[in-house]
Amino acid sequence: MPLPELKLIERLRHQARRSQRPSGKIGDLGDLITGMGDDCAVLRGSARYDLLVTTDFSLENVHFRRAWHPPESVGHRCLARGLSDIAAMGGEATAAFLSLGLPSRIPQKWVDRFMKGFQALARRYGVVLAGGDAAESARGVIADIIVLGRVQRGQAILRSGASAGDAIYVTGHLGASGRVLQELRSGRRPNLKAAASRAHFFPEPRMKLGQWLGQRGLASAMIDLSDGLSTDLAHLCVESGVSAVIRQESLPIAENSRGRRSKSLEALDWGEDYELLFTAGARAKIPNKIAGVPVSRIGEMIGAKGKPKVTIMALDGGRRELKPRGWQHFRRRS
Amino acid sequence: MPLPELKLIERLRHQARRSQRPSGKIGDLGDLITGMGDDCAVLRGSARYDLLVTTDFSLENVHFRRAWHPPESVGHRCLARGLSDIAAMGGEATAAFLSLGLPSRIPQKWVDRFMKGFQALARRYGVVLAGGDAAESARGVIADIIVLGRVQRGQAILRSGASAGDAIYVTGHLGASGRVLQELRSGRRPNLKAAASRAHFFPEPRMKLGQWLGQRGLASAMIDLSDGLSTDLAHLCVESGVSAVIRQESLPIAENSRGRRSKSLEALDWGEDYELLFTAGARAKIPNKIAGVPVSRIGEMIGAKGKPKVTIMALDGGRRELKPRGWQHFRRRS
Repeated sequence: MPLPELKLIERLRHQARRSQRPSGKIGDLGDLITGMGDDCAVLRGSARYDLLVTTDFSLENVHFRRAWHPPESVGHRCLARGLSDIAAMGGEATAAFLSLGLPSRIPQKWVDRFMKGFQALARRYGVVLAGGDAAESARGVIADIIVLGRVQRGQAILRSGASAGDAIYVTGHLGASGRVLQELRSGRRPNLKAAASRAHFFPEPRMKLGQWLGQRGLASAMIDLSDGLSTDLAHLCVESGVSAVIRQESLPIAENSRGRRSKSLEALDWGEDYELLFTAGARAKIPNKIAGVPVSRIGEMIGAKGKPKVTIMALDGGRRELKPRGWQHFRRRS
Repeated sequence: MPLPELKLIERLRHQARRSQRPSGKIGDLGDLITGMGDDCAVLRGSARYDLLVTTDFSLENVHFRRAWHPPESVGHRCLARGLSDIAAMGGEATAAFLSLGLPSRIPQKWVDRFMKGFQALARRYGVVLAGGDAAESARGVIADIIVLGRVQRGQAILRSGASAGDAIYVTGHLGASGRVLQELRSGRRPNLKAAASRAHFFPEPRMKLGQWLGQRGLASAMIDLSDGLSTDLAHLCVESGVSAVIRQESLPIAENSRGRRSKSLEALDWGEDYELLFTAGARAKIPNKIAGVPVSRIGEMIGAKGKPKVTIMALDGGRRELKPRGWQHFRRRS
């Protein structure tokens, strides 16, 4: 049996650490500064900028379903996954590469509409489609997106920079995308034009907000919410070596995901919000809104005794550990 | 019905051309210089270097078969495809990113051996595995390799630089890999340790040779032989807007592919030689051997009247057009 996804990534990461370049070569364009374990790899760039690189699969029946997602949405979401990783480093995206494997019977119209959704988002952020590969797939659509970006030298916001005493912030609202997915699973067909549906079908990566934080050096650590807050905050804690305490009352749960009190916490386990989660020094002045997007302070980092963990202070005043319930891909759950 | 691979790439390329960045942003790290239509995209890098990026799929039953290829070979070939593209620009590889989709029932041992083959080649050329993605695949192994490299600023060797009068050269020998594939198709199991088999299972990308040419500015145009000489030389002719005449007697056909005279031309249609095909001014001094690899002069570029084409002067003195018979992936042929 193969390893589950997280184990596999951990193993690749271990191998990657063992494959460091001979030291004589460090310091030139393309040499690695920070590798696996963050939203992007950071590589040596120019005198002014470091280079950011991220890659993400979009596999049919794992990350999307053709019966559920219109082709424009699949193309948009494919690129949005990569852009959101660049945003989470405080960077600006420059170029994208798309490797596309297509089953022999897919209608050309589907491919055209996929590219339409992809390119509309690319244009909005000045990202050039600079290359890629194409092949026939034995089963299902296979897309692999690579996005390159840049960030002021030494200014990339890593997952590992949080300290005890830092405040924790999250952008936008949580759970809107996951709620739509619940509806799709239960057989309903959401209205694609409704605002709540857009969070799932056409999520907006927080590019300007991420750059705003990056340019001002205000955030000590950052991650994008692709796997759900319970999992992604745990990642940030582990990489930073500190624990987190968050308050349920401060969580910006999306309107379509508010229900009974206990239920609303489900939204913390849902993925694909593509919001940003970041920390900042207790005295940093973080506005309530950045680049038009609301920003909520949800808790604080504290020193970790032993393994870093996330504690939630519930509405009834009780405290409990928030376990990371990693985003399970579509096929396994349904 | 979808478009065939070349048509799809052509269409993506057309779309890519339409997605040029606003001109105000050109000139910084990661901005595009040369996009689709070459072995790598060339992007703005540092003061000293331009950045090279290439991506290539390795799909089970399309680019390899688990019954035919040991896992170490699949890992090696996966990375070799990307490295060879960097070599074809005259560049040096720095970092690789691997996106890996695995079926749920693949043995962990297979993955470990795949990584062993991948990392052995990576170490040989000082390439760091810097990131990637992992997911469960519905069917078959899906690998997408991204390789980053660097080349002295403005010195990338493009496919489009050949002029009438330039001489045409090819490295190593042609057809050795394709002959092994023919054997596999006919049910034979080649001895993996035989020298001829290594050309197929463990092809050596021509990194040092490519850099040697790049550093001296000797080659006017270059491409790697991944789709077979008849196809790749045609690509180079189209991009350069000139035609080619090659001599059959000068072709370095691999020993295992020499047979009846007419048969030996088949080797020009076989892919995966991962040799380099390049052009140089008629007076350029190109050694018979570079970095230990033999180099053969096989013909000349001439002015194209109308559409560029490739003519071969046969052993019997006759001339005929060499049609590009593009590398067909495994599944379609067998």
